[in-house]
Amino acid sequence: MTIQAYGAYAGDLPLEPIAITRRAPGAHDVQIDIAFCGVCHSDLHQVRAEWAGTLFPCVPGHEIVGRVSAVGAHVSRYQPGDLVGVGCIVDSCQHCAECDDGLENYCDHMVGTYNGPTADAPGHTLGGYSQRIVVDERYVLRIGHPAEQLAAVAPLLCAGITTWSPLRHWGAGPGKKVGVVGIGGLGHMGIKLAHALGARVVAFTTSDSKRQAALALGADEVVVSRNRAEMKAHTKSFDFILNTVAAPHDLDAFLALLRRDGTMALVGAPATPHPSPNVFNLIMKRRNLAGSLIGGISETQEMLDFCAQHGITADIELIRAEQINAAYERMLQGDVKYRFVIDCATLG
Amino acid sequence: MTIQAYGAYAGDLPLEPIAITRRAPGAHDVQIDIAFCGVCHSDLHQVRAEWAGTLFPCVPGHEIVGRVSAVGAHVSRYQPGDLVGVGCIVDSCQHCAECDDGLENYCDHMVGTYNGPTADAPGHTLGGYSQRIVVDERYVLRIGHPAEQLAAVAPLLCAGITTWSPLRHWGAGPGKKVGVVGIGGLGHMGIKLAHALGARVVAFTTSDSKRQAALALGADEVVVSRNRAEMKAHTKSFDFILNTVAAPHDLDAFLALLRRDGTMALVGAPATPHPSPNVFNLIMKRRNLAGSLIGGISETQEMLDFCAQHGITADIELIRAEQINAAYERMLQGDVKYRFVIDCATLG
Repeated sequence: MTIQAYGAYAGDLPLEPIAITRRAPGAHDVQIDIAFCGVCHSDLHQVRAEWAGTLFPCVPGHEIVGRVSAVGAHVSRYQPGDLVGVGCIVDSCQHCAECDDGLENYCDHMVGTYNGPTADAPGHTLGGYSQRIVVDERYVLRIGHPAEQLAAVAPLLCAGITTWSPLRHWGAGPGKKVGVVGIGGLGHMGIKLAHALGARVVAFTTSDSKRQAALALGADEVVVSRNRAEMKAHTKSFDFILNTVAAPHDLDAFLALLRRDGTMALVGAPATPHPSPNVFNLIMKRRNLAGSLIGGISETQEMLDFCAQHGITADIELIRAEQINAAYERMLQGDVKYRFVIDCATLG
Repeated sequence: MTIQAYGAYAGDLPLEPIAITRRAPGAHDVQIDIAFCGVCHSDLHQVRAEWAGTLFPCVPGHEIVGRVSAVGAHVSRYQPGDLVGVGCIVDSCQHCAECDDGLENYCDHMVGTYNGPTADAPGHTLGGYSQRIVVDERYVLRIGHPAEQLAAVAPLLCAGITTWSPLRHWGAGPGKKVGVVGIGGLGHMGIKLAHALGARVVAFTTSDSKRQAALALGADEVVVSRNRAEMKAHTKSFDFILNTVAAPHDLDAFLALLRRDGTMALVGAPATPHPSPNVFNLIMKRRNLAGSLIGGISETQEMLDFCAQHGITADIELIRAEQINAAYERMLQGDVKYRFVIDCATLG
């Protein structure tokens, strides 16, 4: 079937309306009429060919929510009318150690929701800036939020799980002191989730102007990272720090805030390297510097269920499809609180 | 009491014979007649004032073994004649979380065996290049090896525990694939210990000439790290890598060899930074880059007991005290297999 989407034909061209095809649902497929799609910074990197290997035409979008409109003969978990989501993953090998452990995000053959290999035309996956998508039910998530919250649920599919997975893996919860560095699309979800998990949450920002906003999101305390005295007061006190900042910055300033055996996990990858971290900072308290990549399907479902139960959604600004190029420019300025979401009804 | 030692009066002067005093044993003290003292690279850094804050006169040495020659009134664990050792730590606060957990090595008030604060003359601790030392029994270790192995036991007190602690902390054992980077004083102990713990051990060296030596130490396999094909064959396969190399080098080449959730622990700190590690390498498999500093007293005892049981000692070259300056030069050339040990009987 042919549907409407928004994408680009080259890295230096703006996004524009584009007609794409979706396969007819196979026996294990779920066909989803997309209601909303969040706008992730990765979308911009990919469609502008700032990362190697962008395939064109490129249709970004991996924070997808909508309603099931058809299912294949062997689909057991979903039926038409269900509220569902699709995140960053639409396929994986299903037989490696990572897939066996429910961590398809670390599968060497994980297929991204856009720019991944597929037998479907045009030979690479096309994402959620579109009216409809067809996905194997194994990679479809159930959404338990009320339908009227659907737009604000979309960013949970990437920003939510990208922060949830490391928070859970490194044990954020009651009795733990957790830092969240950066208050943007990822960071604002990190604060909400860490708070809801019961941790004591300290938000780090470079800007004093974000203090009230961070407190409103659920931070117990806000530290302006440029303020040496504020930083020093937290020396050796954090169990875990979730660092969402992709721009190169001084990691040592945060590593020094970890207690013994603490971990700082990076979820953003800078285009140019961070200054090399000081090895003494790692050695003196057996600290860990780690990375984390989105999350697996089962933990994404766990996160969505947790959010539905706790009434957690993203803070969003809803846009029409034709506003996407302007939204990218605003995103580059940090001018969004905290996630743009495309109303996919405007694609028609 | 006045005893003979070997030390330096300034960073740019060679080590020479020097008379120092030791306190009379207090109620909780053990007085040890030192038989042998290992020569650690830290000794050289400290005595040559390559690290900040060296206090002179400086008497290095924290791989100390000998026999108890007197004990204080309240010493319960040792008696004259016992074979004992002293490592890098001679005091700590005894009431912080680290001390409570038996990890005095991470105590903020840990007192090093040399160059640490003390009430004893001359106001800083003086190490094991000396005839005798007096230490609180809490920081004295029991040696279960036969007396004739004593010289080769000395390096266990620093090189042994520095590798044992991270190997144990990150679970080296049966079913685990463990890498050891660098085959020197630390690395040769890392290979022996990881092998004895039951792990599959791969030794990494820059020099093909060390291949046979590494196999003889207990490595199951040796990889020449300059050989790209050899390195690539181990991609994503290690549970843990112990990196003993203090010289700045490409960490990414080793991080890429870790499987998901694997850790590389650094036990050497370079004088100038390593090239900044690639964040993608951390993110894509949730890898960890960590540091580790010597070990706690109880795990040092555990390591010594394990080594006595398994017949493990260091490979050493015994020297006379007056050879120490020449030994330092040879150490800088990497010309030692694998640890110099001073025969402290030559101090007299």
